Amino acid sequence: MSLIVQKFGGTSVGDADRIREVAGHVARTVRRGNQVVLVVSAMGKETDELLRLAGDVARHRHGREMDMLITAGERKAIALVAMALHDQGIEAASFTGSQAGFVTDTNHQNAKILDLRTDRIQAALDAGMVPVVAGAQGVSTDKDVTFLGRGGSDTTAVALAYALKAEVCELYTDVSGVFSADPRLVPDARKMTTISFDELLEMTATGCPKPAMRSVEFARSYNVPLHVRSAFTWEIGTGVKEEDDTMEQASVIAVTSDTTDGKITVSGLADRPGVAGALFRGLADHGINVDMIVQNVGVGGHADISFTVPTEHFEQSLEVARTALPELGAREVTGDAEMAKVSIVGSGMKTDPGVAARMFETLAANGINIEMISTSPIRTSCIVKREHTEAAVTALHGAFGLGG
Amino acid sequence: MSLIVQKFGGTSVGDADRIREVAGHVARTVRRGNQVVLVVSAMGKETDELLRLAGDVARHRHGREMDMLITAGERKAIALVAMALHDQGIEAASFTGSQAGFVTDTNHQNAKILDLRTDRIQAALDAGMVPVVAGAQGVSTDKDVTFLGRGGSDTTAVALAYALKAEVCELYTDVSGVFSADPRLVPDARKMTTISFDELLEMTATGCPKPAMRSVEFARSYNVPLHVRSAFTWEIGTGVKEEDDTMEQASVIAVTSDTTDGKITVSGLADRPGVAGALFRGLADHGINVDMIVQNVGVGGHADISFTVPTEHFEQSLEVARTALPELGAREVTGDAEMAKVSIVGSGMKTDPGVAARMFETLAANGINIEMISTSPIRTSCIVKREHTEAAVTALHGAFGLGG
Repeated sequence: MSLIVQKFGGTSVGDADRIREVAGHVARTVRRGNQVVLVVSAMGKETDELLRLAGDVARHRHGREMDMLITAGERKAIALVAMALHDQGIEAASFTGSQAGFVTDTNHQNAKILDLRTDRIQAALDAGMVPVVAGAQGVSTDKDVTFLGRGGSDTTAVALAYALKAEVCELYTDVSGVFSADPRLVPDARKMTTISFDELLEMTATGCPKPAMRSVEFARSYNVPLHVRSAFTWEIGTGVKEEDDTMEQASVIAVTSDTTDGKITVSGLADRPGVAGALFRGLADHGINVDMIVQNVGVGGHADISFTVPTEHFEQSLEVARTALPELGAREVTGDAEMAKVSIVGSGMKTDPGVAARMFETLAANGINIEMISTSPIRTSCIVKREHTEAAVTALHGAFGLGG
Repeated sequence: MSLIVQKFGGTSVGDADRIREVAGHVARTVRRGNQVVLVVSAMGKETDELLRLAGDVARHRHGREMDMLITAGERKAIALVAMALHDQGIEAASFTGSQAGFVTDTNHQNAKILDLRTDRIQAALDAGMVPVVAGAQGVSTDKDVTFLGRGGSDTTAVALAYALKAEVCELYTDVSGVFSADPRLVPDARKMTTISFDELLEMTATGCPKPAMRSVEFARSYNVPLHVRSAFTWEIGTGVKEEDDTMEQASVIAVTSDTTDGKITVSGLADRPGVAGALFRGLADHGINVDMIVQNVGVGGHADISFTVPTEHFEQSLEVARTALPELGAREVTGDAEMAKVSIVGSGMKTDPGVAARMFETLAANGINIEMISTSPIRTSCIVKREHTEAAVTALHGAFGLGG
């Protein structure tokens, strides 16, 4: 008998029909002799609707109250899923984050798990029940309701899988697995059978939308095997685990793209210690998350720094950089809000030094100019103009032979 | 400085505008130097919508899960009200039933309060905050979420007012007080300034829709002064307290009507001990709530029993009575689903023996036949055909001089 944690996202439980479908799948999993713990997100777009309602009611979004509000969505979902399971003849009981034993810090809207006390969940399992746990929520050390943030349901599931020593944590979603490229851009993108935590992390960091990066980090740290799969087709998806010899050792396994980047360049900086620090401290103080940073020292001892920021913070970032020009001893600030990051990912890159060169050659051969480059041991990313995204992804997917 | 508990029903917080209006009223109450504890119901028709959703998802309505589902509505409302108060510059914090200290039995969907531990609410008050408490919910002795049932928010408010020794419990609703008759039926119905707990109890038991009867019983038992008033006009409403000499001593203060009654008559019953018991045990076993019961012993030692049941249980009650005919030694069962109960209520009736007679004469003078009669010390009720309801109420309201 295996213990499996199954997590269902919002679209998977978007309406009454979907909830009954999910209950049917869980019932089949139980009848095959498995113990199941469910983690459920709020139905469909409910979290967005609650946020809109809060905006209608008040100008200020008080963290403690926002968490009380938003966590109501998961509560509804777990009760309905538990009822649908009863209808399938499966004993089930719903548990809020607090009831499931998730103790968090007091950082509302984005709380971190401090402790997980699984005695109620374990007791339900021992009694032959399916515990249905509300995703992305807990109770703080101040006894207030807390929300783990967007994507927090994945974290809830991985944490439960670790604490309960589950065989696998299945993350059900609206895609059927992790693909070698976004199938909307590359029709012959291939669903991967197995990838490593490191590869999935690099992919989520560079544009692969699911699962939530924080949960993958958690799964990697605690070695919790994941299975990313579909709640619509129910086919086998993509397994995620520690890298081992059974995995494909292709240099490159996937091409990702992220079209939410804007690029800013500060030119003619004084080349003295502390200048870059002053620039990025200023951006951090405005809560702006800088992604890629590249610095060149040119002739005459002056430096140019380019960096990327989310498009939504582009104008504000330009403003911060311009204001800092005198302090930085810099000449000018230029920027382009419409950039994209195209990345190739693969564990085999570590032992294949020609991979990056092939990426640059492929983009050049397609007339695509590379504006910035960054690398990790298992990833190479290029910043290109956003209009080239699809052409770049398609060309790289072909050049590295990733087609299905 | 007075401590006031203010309870707002679903229509009072039906949308974002209403929530901001309520927050404005609370802010004014606080600025006048009062301490306020709020109790809030789910927004508008949300509870109904959650019930419908449960019906769409599952055939069986599991009590524990229904309570988890339904209590989500109040959670949303308290968070939004607290945020709206922050916008008004009022410090506030929302509390679920569990956080507010409501410990209940495990009778899901209709839980009873066993204990109320107000330390978190008192601490919030001591810190100068307005606690915003979710109505109609608590945590059971099994640590499960419980729902106190429809109208339970009124009970939450009265219990808090008692435990915190509040000066008054204000029940805000969509009517501006308690009236001498339903103003939709009787245009010159008069809003009463003050009535006694006993009078309000008799009125709610016989068709006055608000406040919930259980909360009035609670308020009477613990002598918690109520103030039934409008969340739309904000005018002074009707005070409810123990009977005292300052109250109006009119024989009759109000006429109520309830058009949800059906009448069933079992004729020719053997007049022997235990027969009536057998009949009503059978109905109780089907969960049917019998209201009025009248028995006559006729010639030949045979009895007729008439009783009223809610219209929704009329057909089932007929069936139960018919099935029991042989056991009861009875001749036949007849019934009329379309009946109404018209009642006059007033503490002064206790010392005015002519009141009931005047009621019967008034109905007779208007050509309205009385099918059953029941009385309490401060109420007389007559069952009449439903089509006569409006005429009966209007005639009685006029005959007892209740007009504004």
